[in-house]
Amino acid sequence: MTLVPIDDPSDPRLDPYRAVRERDLVGRAGLFVAEGEVVLRMLAASRRFAAVSALIVDKRRDKLADLLAALDPDVPVYLVPQAVIDTVAGFEIHRGILALGRRPEPVPADALLAGLPARALVVAAVGIANHDNMGGIFRNAAAFGAAAVLLDPTSCDPLYRKAIRVSVGGVLAMPFARLAAEDDLPDLLARHGFTAFALSPQGSTRLADLARPPRAAVILGAEGPGLPAALLARTHTVRIPMAAGFDSLNVATTSGIVLHRLAEADGLPVS
Amino acid sequence: MTLVPIDDPSDPRLDPYRAVRERDLVGRAGLFVAEGEVVLRMLAASRRFAAVSALIVDKRRDKLADLLAALDPDVPVYLVPQAVIDTVAGFEIHRGILALGRRPEPVPADALLAGLPARALVVAAVGIANHDNMGGIFRNAAAFGAAAVLLDPTSCDPLYRKAIRVSVGGVLAMPFARLAAEDDLPDLLARHGFTAFALSPQGSTRLADLARPPRAAVILGAEGPGLPAALLARTHTVRIPMAAGFDSLNVATTSGIVLHRLAEADGLPVS
Repeated sequence: MTLVPIDDPSDPRLDPYRAVRERDLVGRAGLFVAEGEVVLRMLAASRRFAAVSALIVDKRRDKLADLLAALDPDVPVYLVPQAVIDTVAGFEIHRGILALGRRPEPVPADALLAGLPARALVVAAVGIANHDNMGGIFRNAAAFGAAAVLLDPTSCDPLYRKAIRVSVGGVLAMPFARLAAEDDLPDLLARHGFTAFALSPQGSTRLADLARPPRAAVILGAEGPGLPAALLARTHTVRIPMAAGFDSLNVATTSGIVLHRLAEADGLPVS
Repeated sequence: MTLVPIDDPSDPRLDPYRAVRERDLVGRAGLFVAEGEVVLRMLAASRRFAAVSALIVDKRRDKLADLLAALDPDVPVYLVPQAVIDTVAGFEIHRGILALGRRPEPVPADALLAGLPARALVVAAVGIANHDNMGGIFRNAAAFGAAAVLLDPTSCDPLYRKAIRVSVGGVLAMPFARLAAEDDLPDLLARHGFTAFALSPQGSTRLADLARPPRAAVILGAEGPGLPAALLARTHTVRIPMAAGFDSLNVATTSGIVLHRLAEADGLPVS
């Protein structure tokens, strides 16, 4: 491993970590920011994502020895005092662990679906603009063994620092693809033999009554606006019955309820 | 309705709203802060909670006329410019709506359970310290028709501003009681005929295989530590099967999955 102690917060090698909170919203050319031990472990183990560097509070070095050893030996690990990581990042990094990862080449949705097994569950996010919800959806997709996540052009970036953190690394574990503007989601799913289930409070089938086809896609829209009527008209619509007068579920929670129901039939191993 | 225009941010009538973010963490004697239109509507409609005053950006007054009319006519509604509400609260109040509510006398858990119907679902939170998770649990409890929420002595306050907001008002809709230090949760539930289901990754029964007794209690612990072993030993333990290698669910999402499963049998009306 390549350990590089740095004491000067103005050291240019720390530039990619400056003002992390503001900059990761506008994106860095080809990079993303990972935060915390669990996420860095998943980055180190990933085949799709490569770590570019890591920034660690020096007093955490010994406890993280196995994690640092799991990184490619050429990846520089900058070791700094707590005050330096806070100054550079622009806010308190309680866990003392940041890393930069490289974004892989985007995979076309068509190619991603074509490569999935005959029995597979995918999630499609339509208009999901909130990073917490995006992270929660990826976390549930990973927990219930989904094979991939599709994102429409208006959904937010799952490789945003907070989305990765909320997903507990699920974003790094779960293959995903963003649809191009000209892609048509129902056509795309049908072409690959996926039955499209669109969640809506007015859905025609109760979730509990749903039969699980071998290839199933769960389509989720944003709280409030929900899914476009034109999309609902071309899919199997599914509802989750709720108490009269309190028809309100968070979209990440909805993903958990639906994926649990559809994954049951797969006899997921208890981990 | 009692409309009181105020232009001076130092007006003493606005004192209870000062530095809301800091102060609602330490609590105000007998009061809580509600935020946003949906939550204020639930406060106005509540029989358990009374509004003490409201603080509204003046330009939103006309759009909120029906809501303001629903408040007790004696409750003062302070109308202020946007800059005044932001200055007083100490951060940007985008929605332009705050209110103070009065905390009701606490109900003993024993009395709350005794008053529930013969068929009822309750949620018990043990060591839930995160306000987002607390809000999410209440939101799901309300959505799936739970009758009450119990809180152990170490769980956080659901009447914290952010927990109420995340619950979409569920905290104001759902009866709840906090256990005293000397209360024993399994004893309490057994005394009132509730079967206690404790969620744990090592639970002995799969959620999908659970039979729904008339009175059921779902016990949830914090992510990470989970529920105490002594509690698990005295309850029916339940697991949600997950993918190998990614055994990770958010506790609010867990509450949604379990409550949906147990409420199915109740044939909840689709709202």
